[in-house]
Amino acid sequence: MADFEGMWRDLAPVGRSASSGGYFRQPWLSAELELRAWFREAAAERGLDLEEDPFGNLVAWWHPAARDTGADRVLTGSHLDSVLDGGAFDGPLGVVSAFAAIDLLRERGVLPARSLGVAAFVEEEGSRFGRACLGSRLAVGTASWDDARELTDRDGVRLGDVVEGAADGARSTLLDGVGSYVELHVEQGRGLVDRDAAVGVGGGIWPHGRFRYDVAGRADHAGTTRMEDRADPMLTYAMTVLAANKQARLTGARSTFGRVEVRPNGTNAVPSHVTAWLDARAESDEALAALVAGIERQAVDRAERDGTSLTVTAESVSRAVTFDVRLRDRVATALAPGGTAPVLPTQAGHDAGVLQEAGLPSAMLFVRNPTGVSHAPQETAATADCLAGVQALADVLAGLVR
Amino acid sequence: MADFEGMWRDLAPVGRSASSGGYFRQPWLSAELELRAWFREAAAERGLDLEEDPFGNLVAWWHPAARDTGADRVLTGSHLDSVLDGGAFDGPLGVVSAFAAIDLLRERGVLPARSLGVAAFVEEEGSRFGRACLGSRLAVGTASWDDARELTDRDGVRLGDVVEGAADGARSTLLDGVGSYVELHVEQGRGLVDRDAAVGVGGGIWPHGRFRYDVAGRADHAGTTRMEDRADPMLTYAMTVLAANKQARLTGARSTFGRVEVRPNGTNAVPSHVTAWLDARAESDEALAALVAGIERQAVDRAERDGTSLTVTAESVSRAVTFDVRLRDRVATALAPGGTAPVLPTQAGHDAGVLQEAGLPSAMLFVRNPTGVSHAPQETAATADCLAGVQALADVLAGLVR
Repeated sequence: MADFEGMWRDLAPVGRSASSGGYFRQPWLSAELELRAWFREAAAERGLDLEEDPFGNLVAWWHPAARDTGADRVLTGSHLDSVLDGGAFDGPLGVVSAFAAIDLLRERGVLPARSLGVAAFVEEEGSRFGRACLGSRLAVGTASWDDARELTDRDGVRLGDVVEGAADGARSTLLDGVGSYVELHVEQGRGLVDRDAAVGVGGGIWPHGRFRYDVAGRADHAGTTRMEDRADPMLTYAMTVLAANKQARLTGARSTFGRVEVRPNGTNAVPSHVTAWLDARAESDEALAALVAGIERQAVDRAERDGTSLTVTAESVSRAVTFDVRLRDRVATALAPGGTAPVLPTQAGHDAGVLQEAGLPSAMLFVRNPTGVSHAPQETAATADCLAGVQALADVLAGLVR
Repeated sequence: MADFEGMWRDLAPVGRSASSGGYFRQPWLSAELELRAWFREAAAERGLDLEEDPFGNLVAWWHPAARDTGADRVLTGSHLDSVLDGGAFDGPLGVVSAFAAIDLLRERGVLPARSLGVAAFVEEEGSRFGRACLGSRLAVGTASWDDARELTDRDGVRLGDVVEGAADGARSTLLDGVGSYVELHVEQGRGLVDRDAAVGVGGGIWPHGRFRYDVAGRADHAGTTRMEDRADPMLTYAMTVLAANKQARLTGARSTFGRVEVRPNGTNAVPSHVTAWLDARAESDEALAALVAGIERQAVDRAERDGTSLTVTAESVSRAVTFDVRLRDRVATALAPGGTAPVLPTQAGHDAGVLQEAGLPSAMLFVRNPTGVSHAPQETAATADCLAGVQALADVLAGLVR
């Protein structure tokens, strides 16, 4: 499988920061546009038919010799974009492995009875326009273009001005006739390390959400304003960060404040506004709701003490996902024909979860991550494990396209 | 005094944000360059001689008919730059009042026996290159150009590339022969409101400093990384914010975290770095040292718990300043010939403090601020109080130039 390693080498420098070694592959900026060009080339080299929907999602189709009926098509793939300063594997591993699996099926002489597509969904991380899995949500119709096109990035650029050609009421036909989706992804924890396995199967996705905390106070001179005369939103924010951490620890959930913006953000002025984003995840929808409510309650109390005012906006909430059990079992059987493949839950959102929620049977394969680190430059996977992933994916697809 | 109000109207729109009503007048950016052009024009209209030093500090000189001996010159003025989203008065009030005072002295037929200059010191707020009172420090030589030119703004622009014409070892001659400096400034608290007075005299300046807190942790996925496996610098930062607030409250001091920068600043990633700036002020040098040490100690402890690492850098520390007592008494007598002028300490740094510390007898006049708010769009002063300030300044200067 020289192809996997060759493709991986081609992608390695694209969008990589010389200082941190991490990747900056936000949608429709230069690095990601280069990845899209690479995707088109990879499709063309293999004689696959490229299809692009109005929102920028891509599929490279391998159609059978006798055109398929258009039903029960099989889709695999992942995404090409990254978080800011992210790792090389989250996303691209699934796309590269999909092309490599097609190469392998061809080497094996497999002739698919139905169409097999390699997908690259756009803005999976939400790193530019703030909505995770935006491309797949638009593709299945759980996000509407009329809303999405008004989203702006940090520089105030409108999504509608970036994505050309999406007219009013635009819809994607990429998933028409697709009967199953299989996404291979680097694991983002150490579940496979603990189980001593190179590849595992996804069981489900924790519910999760993003909540914007807008805290408004009053700008003042940092020297002359007495502490008791202030309405400092930074204090409300700081207490909320600690409360969110504590609540998540106590309940075995996750909560993170990874992004904050301060106005005017000057050293010698009490800020007028602090805006911050809470990323919260828990094992069940009920646990997530309780976690989020608990954090907000403490923030509201503190805002009252600080003389600030707080608005919390749910920017996106994804319910718990259980992957299609029949498909999951087929994947597990392909992985360990005689035995038992490890089944793992994940706390990360994925396009596969969006598709499953929209009623398209979906499954995930995870590849072992030796440190468990993800969304960071240190994210990694051993080449041998990646190649085992490609083999497993090819086995799964071979069964599905038969 | 139509001139004061006319000048004030001319400056009102320069660098004002349409959304907040606050001012963005960072040195050597368009709004501040416009203010410098205005200063040159105000000097030219009055037949004053303009002098500019290599660092961008400006003085408009009114030389006596028979050229002065070059000794015991009198300087007044303030600065034109603002904090980010600051008020209209902090700085410009002193410059405009200085020109208006000269107009008033001329109306009164005063013929100065020594040169009288109106100064505008650059980067007083440190809003662009992070060093408060940079212009006056360079003018007196307590900051060196060889260090200062390497300072960079938030966009990475070097001060040395912005200020043209400052050669190696450059020095300012603006203050040569100056025997006293009087700075008029809007009050930044409610001391004059409490004393029911329009104008007061500065007694001294609290010691203060800026300390950069660099907290390094480890970027991780916000969903998949267990809370106990994280090294999250946002937690260390949050606890430090609360500790700084509490320490200042307990000791009657001031501490503020008004500026923070997070990397990568993404919603779904645990941050790798948080950099924040502590602004701390206290009544005495000892009290400030104790305050700063106490905050750092708590931050270090928390960093240990969080698995993060902390570096604290003192970016600038100004010792307590007591203004020249003889000059202060002359100012107080001019203000209230028969009675007692209010004398106020201030918690804010000023160029007058830098000059005093460098051995140049300096004094300050404060104009009443009805709300006490400063460094914010709401900063204000009544026109009648401003005009009383001009009268008082003219009276003081008339005595000094005799």
